[in-house]
Amino acid sequence: MTEPFDAVSVIRTKRDAGRIPDDQVDWVIDAYTRGAVADEQMSALAMAILLNGMEPDELSRWTNAMIASGDRLDLSGVARPTTDKHSTGGVGDKITLPLAPLVASLGAAVPQLSGRGLGHTGGTLDKLESIPGWRANVSNADFIRQLNEIGAVVCAAGDGLAPADKKLYALRDVTGTVEAIPLIASSIMSKKIAEGASALVLDVKVGTGAFMKTRADARELAETMVALGTAAGTHTVALLTDMNTPLGLSAGNALEVAEAVQVLAGGGPSDIIELTVALALEMLAGVGITDVDPAEALRDGRAMDTWRRMIAAQGGEPDAALPRAAEQHIVTAPSSGVLTRLDAYAVGVAAWRLGAGRARKEDPVSPGAGVVLLAKPGDTVRQGQPLLELHADDPGRFDRALQALEGGYDIDGSDVAGSDIAGSDIDGSDVDGGTAFQPSPLVLDRVTA
Amino acid sequence: MTEPFDAVSVIRTKRDAGRIPDDQVDWVIDAYTRGAVADEQMSALAMAILLNGMEPDELSRWTNAMIASGDRLDLSGVARPTTDKHSTGGVGDKITLPLAPLVASLGAAVPQLSGRGLGHTGGTLDKLESIPGWRANVSNADFIRQLNEIGAVVCAAGDGLAPADKKLYALRDVTGTVEAIPLIASSIMSKKIAEGASALVLDVKVGTGAFMKTRADARELAETMVALGTAAGTHTVALLTDMNTPLGLSAGNALEVAEAVQVLAGGGPSDIIELTVALALEMLAGVGITDVDPAEALRDGRAMDTWRRMIAAQGGEPDAALPRAAEQHIVTAPSSGVLTRLDAYAVGVAAWRLGAGRARKEDPVSPGAGVVLLAKPGDTVRQGQPLLELHADDPGRFDRALQALEGGYDIDGSDVAGSDIAGSDIDGSDVDGGTAFQPSPLVLDRVTA
Repeated sequence: MTEPFDAVSVIRTKRDAGRIPDDQVDWVIDAYTRGAVADEQMSALAMAILLNGMEPDELSRWTNAMIASGDRLDLSGVARPTTDKHSTGGVGDKITLPLAPLVASLGAAVPQLSGRGLGHTGGTLDKLESIPGWRANVSNADFIRQLNEIGAVVCAAGDGLAPADKKLYALRDVTGTVEAIPLIASSIMSKKIAEGASALVLDVKVGTGAFMKTRADARELAETMVALGTAAGTHTVALLTDMNTPLGLSAGNALEVAEAVQVLAGGGPSDIIELTVALALEMLAGVGITDVDPAEALRDGRAMDTWRRMIAAQGGEPDAALPRAAEQHIVTAPSSGVLTRLDAYAVGVAAWRLGAGRARKEDPVSPGAGVVLLAKPGDTVRQGQPLLELHADDPGRFDRALQALEGGYDIDGSDVAGSDIAGSDIDGSDVDGGTAFQPSPLVLDRVTA
Repeated sequence: MTEPFDAVSVIRTKRDAGRIPDDQVDWVIDAYTRGAVADEQMSALAMAILLNGMEPDELSRWTNAMIASGDRLDLSGVARPTTDKHSTGGVGDKITLPLAPLVASLGAAVPQLSGRGLGHTGGTLDKLESIPGWRANVSNADFIRQLNEIGAVVCAAGDGLAPADKKLYALRDVTGTVEAIPLIASSIMSKKIAEGASALVLDVKVGTGAFMKTRADARELAETMVALGTAAGTHTVALLTDMNTPLGLSAGNALEVAEAVQVLAGGGPSDIIELTVALALEMLAGVGITDVDPAEALRDGRAMDTWRRMIAAQGGEPDAALPRAAEQHIVTAPSSGVLTRLDAYAVGVAAWRLGAGRARKEDPVSPGAGVVLLAKPGDTVRQGQPLLELHADDPGRFDRALQALEGGYDIDGSDVAGSDIAGSDIDGSDVDGGTAFQPSPLVLDRVTA
């Protein structure tokens, strides 16, 4: 096959900070997917994009070309309005678990294609797989049926969606080109747009435990993704949310499922409730459902009913005992005072080292491993009081997890109380993520088209 | 084997405009040569270097690591002082042919490892291979013997010198990362330093027919290479020379050999004489030989004697008829006036298309093909007068060569004479490339440590 363009000239255009013409954008993505553009050419292009950026319409074309490299999900058989959520990844981020059934219980359909975890952030599928019997793989027919009958599916994405992104992501991972906002945005949005929901809410994490460490970067990523979604005709909103502190009181697979179930039972940590409700309001508003009270649907059992049906539809046993790691180790407070900081990244790495996460895609995860937080920032602790509970199948893992936690928290022993970082006194029902957005210590900002 | 470093972290350092630590520079070059750093990783690093640059000492370390990837030539068995020349490549640049025997005739040894041409610039080996019987490959023992007995060897570089550069150059060629001054400088200098001569003169071309189009870029490259050579203990000087107009009156293989022989016979075009003498003075001064008159050695036959011995030592027949292409085509002046411009790049591409050059390393070249210039800038021409003579084995090649020449020259029909761009009235013997450098239209500048 004679190629209409030449990879070197495309690379040179971006190297020299130019805009890649539309037809060359289409070609380079297609040719890379086919193997006619080599890995070493695409990695040079990715580095040039990282350093020289992309124009908004150029990036939109790039994203569309990634979508065109594969299939689009056909949700035309779903009678309910479809709405989706994506989180850029954090520590203790089990929000999808209560959120998907909650939104489904209020009338929308949530087609949530999720991934497995890599590194210090967990993956939603890993969490759900700690439920005995639960299967991540769902056929197309079952997917549509479950969306119509129950309203929520959380399952593995097939290989057919944006294969260019899959190939490009693996390449970026080994070539130091992950941290490029246009490439991050197009990677996420190509898959999300291909999934075909009418509305999309992005939870863009910012802080030590997040991919984006600064609010400026997080905002740029959010704005870029909202623009891409909007250009593709998907109603898209982003919330910037704090990830300096783990979400909730657990990081791990079964540990996070248990916490999600508490929230679905009307209890659970206030930050999980706040964020779940804020995202639910956005997801629902995106498809025109505004006269609902998600906090109430958590309290009155509607969300829990949907959760049980959703889990059972994929073979899971909602009432089965969750796996528990064989060994526990308690970390106690070294002094008395106010816990002013409990670092999300430190807890994430500790949970990972305990077995909750994986270093390579092929690695298994331990369903029971992880970290339980016995205090959150703002809490007053006494010397010797348990702060953290580490869970592992193999006690040999505690040492390296403890190393990860060194310097990961501060206790202020002076009389001045620390600020209430976790916002544990915020009532989720006060937060309206829709028209009248009010920032909180957890939900920092809202980005719309 | 466990690697002491990680390619991604090296890439990230350069991506973020940092300095790669010495041990990581050493490692990344070695690991790339071994295949432990993948092509897609090195191309991302190359793009980051292109866009973010390198510190001088970092680049020196990088160059040393490339040298350490292979062998160094051992010239300890050569009794004469060794001095070398490198040109960054131009159109009609046959200077090595008269220069090497000229410098040898004045007491130095010239170990000139050369390459074949690619694209619009010819290669010295391709030119010499048009001499019947001449062989580019010389054994190590013959190389040293010929340097001692004759004083000059022009031959193919073995695979053992800087294999990292060979691999990296091939990668840069397909990834849009050729045009990085640190990478160009380290590529050239790693080979030249590994060749082990005591002194080195760099002929850095600037102009339309050169790799460096602007004087600023050429000067930066020259300064970078001089610094690298000096840091490695090689006496290094660079001349910046004009490459807007082809050198001499021919571009092609046998055509250029014939012109070189004219110069060695005491005649030939003045620009070839000027540059040959200027470079010879620098090469000789670099090894302390200053009381010599290269122009005289061209005129009195000393250089020619060495040329004949040098060619014969490698199997060539100095008196054999040179190959001539089967077909000629004359380009005439479309109007009368002063020829004010004859573009080096246009002539180089025309010669290439006529068969003198190759598009891929594997391609053969036609020894007889090329372009003869029947007028040079500054000359007055009459309408219909022959301007260029195209030589090709296949007359089907003339059309595309003529296309390359379209717009490649200007004739000014007004009464005002054009400036004498080629400097054809400059007497080479007036130019002293040593301590009292005087710029000319051809030799623009001189860069020393």
